[in-house]
Amino acid sequence: MTESKTPVTETLKRFRELTGLIKQYGEILGVAYWDMRTGAPRKGIPLRSEAVGALSAESFRISTSDEMGELIDRLSSSATLPTLSRIDRRLVEESKKDYDRNRKLPPELYREYVVLTSQAESAWEELKENNDFPGFVPYLEKIIDFNRRFIELWGAKATPYDTLLDLYEPGLTTTELDRLFGELRGRLVPLVIAIAKDGNRPDTSFLEGTYDKETQKAFSKFILKEMGYDFEAGRLDESVHPFMTGLNLGDARITTRYLPHDLTSALFGTIHEGGHALYEQNIDPELAGTLLCSGTSMGIHESQSRLWENMVGRGRAFWQHYFPELKKHFPGKLDNVSAEAFYRGVNLVEPGFIRIDADELTYNLHIMIRYEIEKMLFNEGLSARDLPEVWNAKYMEALSIEPPNDSVGVLQDTHWSGGAFGYFPSYSLGNMYGAQIMDVANRKLPALDDQIAAGQLHPLKEWLTEQVYRHGKLLQPAEIIQSVSGQELKSSYLCDYLETKYKDIYHL
Amino acid sequence: MTESKTPVTETLKRFRELTGLIKQYGEILGVAYWDMRTGAPRKGIPLRSEAVGALSAESFRISTSDEMGELIDRLSSSATLPTLSRIDRRLVEESKKDYDRNRKLPPELYREYVVLTSQAESAWEELKENNDFPGFVPYLEKIIDFNRRFIELWGAKATPYDTLLDLYEPGLTTTELDRLFGELRGRLVPLVIAIAKDGNRPDTSFLEGTYDKETQKAFSKFILKEMGYDFEAGRLDESVHPFMTGLNLGDARITTRYLPHDLTSALFGTIHEGGHALYEQNIDPELAGTLLCSGTSMGIHESQSRLWENMVGRGRAFWQHYFPELKKHFPGKLDNVSAEAFYRGVNLVEPGFIRIDADELTYNLHIMIRYEIEKMLFNEGLSARDLPEVWNAKYMEALSIEPPNDSVGVLQDTHWSGGAFGYFPSYSLGNMYGAQIMDVANRKLPALDDQIAAGQLHPLKEWLTEQVYRHGKLLQPAEIIQSVSGQELKSSYLCDYLETKYKDIYHL
Repeated sequence: MTESKTPVTETLKRFRELTGLIKQYGEILGVAYWDMRTGAPRKGIPLRSEAVGALSAESFRISTSDEMGELIDRLSSSATLPTLSRIDRRLVEESKKDYDRNRKLPPELYREYVVLTSQAESAWEELKENNDFPGFVPYLEKIIDFNRRFIELWGAKATPYDTLLDLYEPGLTTTELDRLFGELRGRLVPLVIAIAKDGNRPDTSFLEGTYDKETQKAFSKFILKEMGYDFEAGRLDESVHPFMTGLNLGDARITTRYLPHDLTSALFGTIHEGGHALYEQNIDPELAGTLLCSGTSMGIHESQSRLWENMVGRGRAFWQHYFPELKKHFPGKLDNVSAEAFYRGVNLVEPGFIRIDADELTYNLHIMIRYEIEKMLFNEGLSARDLPEVWNAKYMEALSIEPPNDSVGVLQDTHWSGGAFGYFPSYSLGNMYGAQIMDVANRKLPALDDQIAAGQLHPLKEWLTEQVYRHGKLLQPAEIIQSVSGQELKSSYLCDYLETKYKDIYHL
Repeated sequence: MTESKTPVTETLKRFRELTGLIKQYGEILGVAYWDMRTGAPRKGIPLRSEAVGALSAESFRISTSDEMGELIDRLSSSATLPTLSRIDRRLVEESKKDYDRNRKLPPELYREYVVLTSQAESAWEELKENNDFPGFVPYLEKIIDFNRRFIELWGAKATPYDTLLDLYEPGLTTTELDRLFGELRGRLVPLVIAIAKDGNRPDTSFLEGTYDKETQKAFSKFILKEMGYDFEAGRLDESVHPFMTGLNLGDARITTRYLPHDLTSALFGTIHEGGHALYEQNIDPELAGTLLCSGTSMGIHESQSRLWENMVGRGRAFWQHYFPELKKHFPGKLDNVSAEAFYRGVNLVEPGFIRIDADELTYNLHIMIRYEIEKMLFNEGLSARDLPEVWNAKYMEALSIEPPNDSVGVLQDTHWSGGAFGYFPSYSLGNMYGAQIMDVANRKLPALDDQIAAGQLHPLKEWLTEQVYRHGKLLQPAEIIQSVSGQELKSSYLCDYLETKYKDIYHL
């Protein structure tokens, strides 16, 4: 025990209290957001958005208050910081970063922005359904303007867009992304071309048909349980755009969407969100209730969702065990299909309009398109109303297809309606982190493939918990990848993995 | 326009801002409560309760702040109050009452209480299911202790329990309740006895059987739509204990519970909560976002739920139209039953254990039991662990039945787990208010019975909107009943109504 009643002890107590309150307000706001996305009645949205804006503003006020500034100053002094526990030290560092950033935004501006994005996210659902991009333009213009002002207030890094990237993946730059995406493009585009030209195209006809929604739901729940998702610490619901929200350590919720004529959309969507949720459910309980109790970055978060979705869920070993289970759920539907044929079928490589339905290979191209467009918006002054044209041209250029309407084009993703510019690259980073982590997992758990093929997913989940999940925000993304793999992030693991997998599938 | 920039204008602006914020926090807390009752995962509850406690404490802090005190002082001065608009005047009066009451509670005490009741409400669901009253005692003891301390801090009125009654029905006293309940008992007990002795008992055998849950849900939704419930401003979910929560003017939610072997429980439960929701959905939009945008008292609120449930939903006219609809929903189930037989069947008078399943007549006896027990708790020092014994004895005395276990006895209601001591009398007040209001409705809308028999429920809904709903808290309960009926609350309307209805049904 250190001496109580010393100034540092008192300072620390108050600091924990205030940061704990920010976490608690975040949790309650999270419930309200989840509710708005999963079925809150339409007519309640305008007032709800105002209420959410008011509470966000209060949380923002606390996080940028003079008191918070003084607490952080005292605790982050060179005399004090080294004397703090590991958890408190990280908490001070994280809070300082948020404080320094948020302090530069006028509270009223921030509040308006929260109300705007809350309304825009709800509006987007309807506008997307009605294929009404012009209706979305006023929202988008305002949201982009806000972000441009935020960048000015925060100060542009190497480029204005770099400032946004840093929000989701600390330290990430356009220079590094240009390099990583360049490497990916260099190895993946030839692979996509070879597949189209000489590949042995898998049969996917059996995926067509009608798949009862309730049975899809039952199978989704079954797979989540197999992954080790704890339904006493989460739930599965439906929303237009699937998401996971980690409300607290005992409540990490998933949503999905069931398409009656598509078996795989809900299935792989659920596994994806399940990966996010495993991360949030398995953080060290010591971090519960603190701001460190969440994933460390969007890139690492996406590495877990995409690792489970693709490297596990779209793997041969997985379907050796689970294809018979799938058949049991849909009697008569897949009688003449083998596990191997199903495995190949769900790994069809084909340019398509929808990012979240894309195969592992072309997925990265969808991300590159968004990355390039976001750079144009913030570094080159592209305006919102020109987005469909740019979007469609980029799809033609990268994938040789043109979206027939904006619903399956520029309106497809929820991110921009929520103001999440700079988020998309996280998905490709996640693919790269994931491949690098799985490379280690396969060496450290030599029986892993056999375990998966026997329906034993727990050894992997436990290894990932030990290596990644339990740390929460206690380790930064660079520290995680270094501690797991002994190296910094490289694009080669993803390229190697994809080449091996798809050359095998396509008999190249 | 009055002069702007005068001190009063500024004071008023800030007062509206702060009371608006209290309303907004209440709305977000309402979403969190709704979520905890409709399926939040078990493991998230402890931290969620803490978060809810923290935000409630903040709302409480604002409502009892020195600033709020000064604003209220200035606005309620005899020079200023009469110059305010009708809405602002009522808002000041309501806020002053809350301020004076809440200011007497130490904030930390209040916060502990919110966390405690939040945890207790979640615990109660499980304990009730497991018939575990001893497990509930520690919660109940603490909640009762808190309420005893609140009464001390607020100051006991004529009796300590009077202080609690006043929370739900301003001005209500044990003296008046003793009188009203005495009158009810004097006329209703003989009626119950006559029915048991000489009544022509309706056949209810057709109510037994298995009624598909999804079809029950569909019929519940159908009836709600017929009542004019706006599904774009609400939703219907399931919970252990049915409730309505008015989150904002565009979001008044209902829950119900479906029993597979009981057609009527969900049906009348839904109509009951639907009555509450019609009230909340039809408040004057001018009041939206203010603390006046909700029902004026629990008694008036229950008058609307119970009026729709019993006087409309358990009425002969209603089933003339809706019985054929019910048959359509459950083909083959009610083939040999007439609308008249169904009407008589759903009005069976029979002593039972469960308040919410009780008929209109014995229902009031259930309330009187709770009223007497609550008086014993707060005026005579009855202790929590003795509740089952007292409960069972009172049921034997009033209804000549003894609950076989605590699940269907003392554990049946959620109210005490939430600390709502003093609430129960509202239900019987609601019956009395409702009968008095319907007496006027029948005179003002001479075709009302025919309209209901033709499935036209809108004329009644519109009349009630005009008379009751639109006013929100702008009129106090006594003003409402006076303005609708030209008299104060009387027990005779309820007694007259029940005697007429049940003598007819039982051929007495």
